[in-house]
Amino acid sequence: MNAPEFPADRALDERLSLTRQPFPDSSKVYVAGSRADLRVPMREIALSNGERVTVYDTSGPYTDPKTDIDVRRGLAAVREGWIADRADTEAYVGRDAAAIDDGARNDERGLERVQALRAEAAALQRKPRRARSGANVTQMHYARRGIVTPEMEFVALRENGKREWMREYLGDPEREARLAPNALGALMPAVITPEFVRDEVARGRAIIPANINHLELEPTILGRNFLVKVNANIGNSAVTSSIEEEVEKMVWSIRWGADTVMDLSTGRNIHTTRDWIVRNSPVPIGTVPIYQALEKVGGVAEELSWPIFRDTLVEQAEQGVDYFTIHAGLRLPFIPMTTRRRTGIVSRGGSILAKWCITHHKENFLYTHFEEICEIMKAYDVSFSLGDGLRPGSGADANDEAQFAELRTLGELTKIAWQHDVQTMIEGPGHVPMHLIQANMTEQLRHCQEAPFYTLGPLTIDISPGYDHIASAIGAAMIGWMGTAMLCYVTPKEHLGLPDRDDVKQGLIAYKIAAHAADLAKGHPGARARDDAMSKARFEFRWNDQFALGLDPDTAREFHDETLPKDSAKEAHFCSMCGPKFCSMKITQDVRDYAAAKGLDEAQALAEGLAEKSAEFKARGGEFYIPVHPA
Amino acid sequence: MNAPEFPADRALDERLSLTRQPFPDSSKVYVAGSRADLRVPMREIALSNGERVTVYDTSGPYTDPKTDIDVRRGLAAVREGWIADRADTEAYVGRDAAAIDDGARNDERGLERVQALRAEAAALQRKPRRARSGANVTQMHYARRGIVTPEMEFVALRENGKREWMREYLGDPEREARLAPNALGALMPAVITPEFVRDEVARGRAIIPANINHLELEPTILGRNFLVKVNANIGNSAVTSSIEEEVEKMVWSIRWGADTVMDLSTGRNIHTTRDWIVRNSPVPIGTVPIYQALEKVGGVAEELSWPIFRDTLVEQAEQGVDYFTIHAGLRLPFIPMTTRRRTGIVSRGGSILAKWCITHHKENFLYTHFEEICEIMKAYDVSFSLGDGLRPGSGADANDEAQFAELRTLGELTKIAWQHDVQTMIEGPGHVPMHLIQANMTEQLRHCQEAPFYTLGPLTIDISPGYDHIASAIGAAMIGWMGTAMLCYVTPKEHLGLPDRDDVKQGLIAYKIAAHAADLAKGHPGARARDDAMSKARFEFRWNDQFALGLDPDTAREFHDETLPKDSAKEAHFCSMCGPKFCSMKITQDVRDYAAAKGLDEAQALAEGLAEKSAEFKARGGEFYIPVHPA
Repeated sequence: MNAPEFPADRALDERLSLTRQPFPDSSKVYVAGSRADLRVPMREIALSNGERVTVYDTSGPYTDPKTDIDVRRGLAAVREGWIADRADTEAYVGRDAAAIDDGARNDERGLERVQALRAEAAALQRKPRRARSGANVTQMHYARRGIVTPEMEFVALRENGKREWMREYLGDPEREARLAPNALGALMPAVITPEFVRDEVARGRAIIPANINHLELEPTILGRNFLVKVNANIGNSAVTSSIEEEVEKMVWSIRWGADTVMDLSTGRNIHTTRDWIVRNSPVPIGTVPIYQALEKVGGVAEELSWPIFRDTLVEQAEQGVDYFTIHAGLRLPFIPMTTRRRTGIVSRGGSILAKWCITHHKENFLYTHFEEICEIMKAYDVSFSLGDGLRPGSGADANDEAQFAELRTLGELTKIAWQHDVQTMIEGPGHVPMHLIQANMTEQLRHCQEAPFYTLGPLTIDISPGYDHIASAIGAAMIGWMGTAMLCYVTPKEHLGLPDRDDVKQGLIAYKIAAHAADLAKGHPGARARDDAMSKARFEFRWNDQFALGLDPDTAREFHDETLPKDSAKEAHFCSMCGPKFCSMKITQDVRDYAAAKGLDEAQALAEGLAEKSAEFKARGGEFYIPVHPA
Repeated sequence: MNAPEFPADRALDERLSLTRQPFPDSSKVYVAGSRADLRVPMREIALSNGERVTVYDTSGPYTDPKTDIDVRRGLAAVREGWIADRADTEAYVGRDAAAIDDGARNDERGLERVQALRAEAAALQRKPRRARSGANVTQMHYARRGIVTPEMEFVALRENGKREWMREYLGDPEREARLAPNALGALMPAVITPEFVRDEVARGRAIIPANINHLELEPTILGRNFLVKVNANIGNSAVTSSIEEEVEKMVWSIRWGADTVMDLSTGRNIHTTRDWIVRNSPVPIGTVPIYQALEKVGGVAEELSWPIFRDTLVEQAEQGVDYFTIHAGLRLPFIPMTTRRRTGIVSRGGSILAKWCITHHKENFLYTHFEEICEIMKAYDVSFSLGDGLRPGSGADANDEAQFAELRTLGELTKIAWQHDVQTMIEGPGHVPMHLIQANMTEQLRHCQEAPFYTLGPLTIDISPGYDHIASAIGAAMIGWMGTAMLCYVTPKEHLGLPDRDDVKQGLIAYKIAAHAADLAKGHPGARARDDAMSKARFEFRWNDQFALGLDPDTAREFHDETLPKDSAKEAHFCSMCGPKFCSMKITQDVRDYAAAKGLDEAQALAEGLAEKSAEFKARGGEFYIPVHPA
C-alpha cells in the first residue's frame, strides 16, 4: 500500500506551501462528545491485517483532506459556541494597530506596511473578547466551582483515545503484572473522566491553556497525571515573505507531534505574524511577551517599563495567545548569585530583566506587578508559564543557589496566581547531569505545589554540539517519567545556529521519543498498546504497518527501501538484517511448534534431568560433560 | 584556525580510502609508562586561549600523521615485547587455511580465491602463539597472582588521562560539593592506579580483552569502576572489493569513539576479512563465532556440531580476536518459555542455537562443552562475552522468565569461567522500558557477581524506527549510570536495514553521549572537566574551541556556518541565536560589574527590604505594589 493521494485541492495547497498530506494508511476520525460541536480528532491507522489503531493526533485539520483551509481566513472557530454559552465574556473594541507593535524600528512608513500586511489577511481580524466586569473566565475558576467545561470533556476524550483496539494488546494479565509501570507519584485512573480533569485543574496540578480568543483551539491538558506533552519553538523569518511561510512552520511542527508551539519571534512584523499563527493554530500558542516589549523600546533593556509591558500583555491576550512566559521569579537579590557561575545567565528573558534590574537597582517589575498581571490573565484565560530566567547554562551551574532561589519564588508566585484562579505552570532547566535531575523535580513539586513542570531538556552533557537533541532527550525522558508535564524540545542546532525545517523535525521526533518513554514508564493508560501493535507487526513482517505505526513513517520507509527497495519486500518474511536464508523471527515459529508438540512438561522434565547432571558435574570438579552427537 | 593539513602521504592515504585526518586543532600525544614500549596515546586539543585539553582517544595511529600505515602490513606490534617478556607462550604452526573458513559455499575455486586474497596481504600472516602447556595467559590469571601487567598499567594511565588541565576546571569546592556524583555502587578512586586495575580484574569486576595474538592492541578496560565504553558492530560487504574498504569500517568506527568493534561478518570471505581487521585494529575485536560456524555448515543450524564450533574458536583465537560472544546460557528448557512472547527469540545467535536444540531435542552444546571452551579461552586470553540469546525483542517481553532464567545461567557460567581465570562479561538487552531497566542491572549484579555488563541499548520504546539510536541512547545512559561497563551501539537503521557510513557515525555519537552522561553521573574522575572547558569556551565565544571540544567537530562547525559562515564570526562575541544587538552572555559581565560595584551585601539588604514590603503586601491583601518609574 502506498500513502493516500493528495486530496482534490492538491494544486491549491502546493501553491500555498502548507504540508497537508495525511500520514500513510491513516485517516482522521472524530470522537463525539456530549454536544454536537465537540468532536475530538484522532488519527486512525488501517493496518494490513484489518486491525485499526487509533493514536493521539496533534496535526489538526491540516491532515484532514476533507477540510478546506485558507490561511487568510484561519481555521474554523470550534470553541465559539462553548465560550458563547458560558455568557461571561464580552466583545469589545481592542487596541488599535500601532506601528510600535511591530517594533520601534518601524517608523510611519512601517505602520503603513503593518496595515498592508494586516489588510492582506483581513478575515483574520476579529473583535477580541474579555471577561465581563467581575467575571473570571479561567478553566481553573470553572473547575473550582465544580463546572465541567467542554474543554475539560475534550481533553478527557483525547487522553483516553479509542480504547477498543488497546484492550486487544493489553489483555495478558501475566504480562500486565510484569510490565506494571512505576508512576513515581503520578495518579492516573484507568479511564480519564471529565470530572478527573476538572479536579486536576482545580487542584492546580494540570492546566488547559485556552485563551478565550483562541477559538480555533483543539484543547490539550498539561499535567503529571496525563500524557507527557512536547513543545516546539518557532520564530519569524528575517524577511517575512508570506503568511504561508510563517504558518507552515507551525503546521510542520504539529505534524511531527508538537502539543504546543511557542512563537519566539523577534524583530519586525511580530504582531502580524502572531495573528497569522494563532488564527491558523489548533494547538496552544505560547509567547515570551518581554521579547516584543524589548522590540518596542528599540532593544534597549533598561528602557523597558511596566506600562509598555502591560500594553503588550493585553495586545497578545487579545490576539489569543494561550500562555505567557513571565520571568517574575528573577528577583534582584538573586542576580549577584550568578556571578560565580561558569556560564552566568543564559535565558534571554532572564538576562533582559537582569539588565533592567541592575541598571535601575530596582526589583524586577514583573515581580512587583505580579497581581496586576494576574488580573489580565484571568480576563482572557491566559496561563502562566513562570519563566526560569536563572536556569543553568551548563552542567557546572546546575542546581545552584540562584536556580533554586528563583524556583522557590516561582512557588510563591504560583500561590498568588492560584488566589486569582489563574492557571500556572513552571519552567525548568536546562543543563543538568543525570544524577541531579531528580532534585529538580523534587524541589519543583515541593515548592510549586505540583503545578505542572515544563522543562527545556534537560541536557545531560555539554560536549555534544550538533547533537543536543539527543543529549537532552535523555534528560527529558527521565524528568518526564519523574513528573514533568511538558518537555520543550531542543534541536540539533542548539548552541550553534537557527534551526531549519529538518532540525525542527529532528528535535520533535527526539522529544516524542522522550515523552513516550516517560508515558510507558509512568503508565499512562493505553500508552503501551502502540508499542505492542508495532512489535506484532515486526514479528509478522508487516513492513507497511511498521512504517505507519512509527513516529516518522517517511524516514522508516526510506531507510528500509535503501536496502530492500522492491515492493515485494514489503510483504517478504525476512529483512535485510539476516537475509532470506536465516531468520530469527521464523525460528520462533519452529519453537512454538516444538513446544506444542513436546509440551512444556517434557521440556521441564528435561531441564530437571540436566540440572541433576549439572550438579553432579559440579560435584565432580568439572570433568563431566554431556556428549552430543555431531550432526 | 583551520584543521591541520593532511600529512605528506595524503595522496597515498586517499588512494587507500582510509580516513586519517587528525581532529581539528588536535594532535596525538603519548604518555610514557614504566617501560620504553609502553606509550599511551591521547588526543591533545590546543585551545585558542593557550590552554591544552587532553581527551581519551580511541582512534589509534590513524589520526597520527607521523605514523606510516600500510593495511597490507598491519599496525605496529606494540604488545610484542610485553608478551615475549612473560615467557609463557609459544609460537606454533596454526591451522591451515581451508576453503571452509570462508564458508561452505566456497568450493575448491573458492579456496583459490581465499588463498589469493590472503596472499594479497601476505605480510599480515603471522605464526600464532598460545599458552605453553600448563600455562594460563589471561590477564585475570596474572592479576590473581598479584602481577601488574603492562596491559594493566596501560589502561590505568589511559583512564586517568592528563590530570593537569582537569584540575583547573574542577577546583571550586562549592561547585564540587553541589555536583557530587552519585556512583550507584561504583567505587572509583580519585586516581586509577595499575594496582587498582589489577585488583578489579582479579575480582572479575573488570576485563581487559587482549588476545595474545592481537599484538597491535592499545588495551582498554571494561568495568563499572572505569569509563563507560562503547562498542560498534561492523560487517563485511556482500562483495569485498578491497582490504581498505573492510579496514576503513573499523577505522571510521574508532574515529567516532568505538572502544571495541565487533566483526559480525557473514557470508563469504569472513576469515580473510577478519585477518585484515584484527591486524589493523588498535581496539579489541569481538566476534560471534557461531556465525562463522553456521557458514561452515551451509547456513543450516541443525547441522552445527561441537567439533566444527571448536575448530572455529581455535581459528579465530589464532587470528587474535579479543572476545567471543558465546550463547551458552540459552538452555533447552528455557526455549519453551519464549512461546508466549510478543516477539519470540530475536537474537540471531540465540535463534540458531534454539533451532539446534529443538531439532535434536538436546541441551545447547555450548553449555555442555563450556569447560572445554574455557580451556581454549585461557590459552589465548580470549574473553567471554556471554550472550543473551533470549533477550527481549520488544518492551512487551522485557524482564520475562526466559530472559532472567538465561541471565541466572550466565551467572553460573561466570563462576565456572572464573575457576579457569577466564575474563568474562555478560551481555544484556535489548528492549526495556525505563521503569524496568534498574531490575536488569540489579539482577545482573546479583547473579553474575558484578562481572561487567554489556548491553544493547536498551531501547526504551518500540515505535521509533529510523530513530532507535535515540530511543536506545536514553536506556543506555541510564543503565550506564547504574553500572553497565560497555554499551553496544544501535544505529538509525536498526530494525530497517544495514547501516551505512553515516549511520555508523550517528550511532556512535549517540552512544558517546550516553556513555559520557553516565560517566558524569557516576563521577568518573575528571570526566566533567571537558564539559567545563566547553562551557567556558561557550561563555567566552571561542567558537573554534567549542567545535574542537565537541564529540563531532565537523558537524558542529557545519551547523554554525550555515547561519554565520564568515570566519570573523568565529571570534565575534555573539551568535545567531540572539544576534549582535543583544546577548545574554554579555549581560552576565554587566552583572559581574554590578556585583563588584554594589557588593553582595547591598543586594542582600535590598532583598530583605523587599521581603518586608512583600510581607506587608500580602498582609494587606494584594493592593500594594512597588511603583517603578517608566523609562
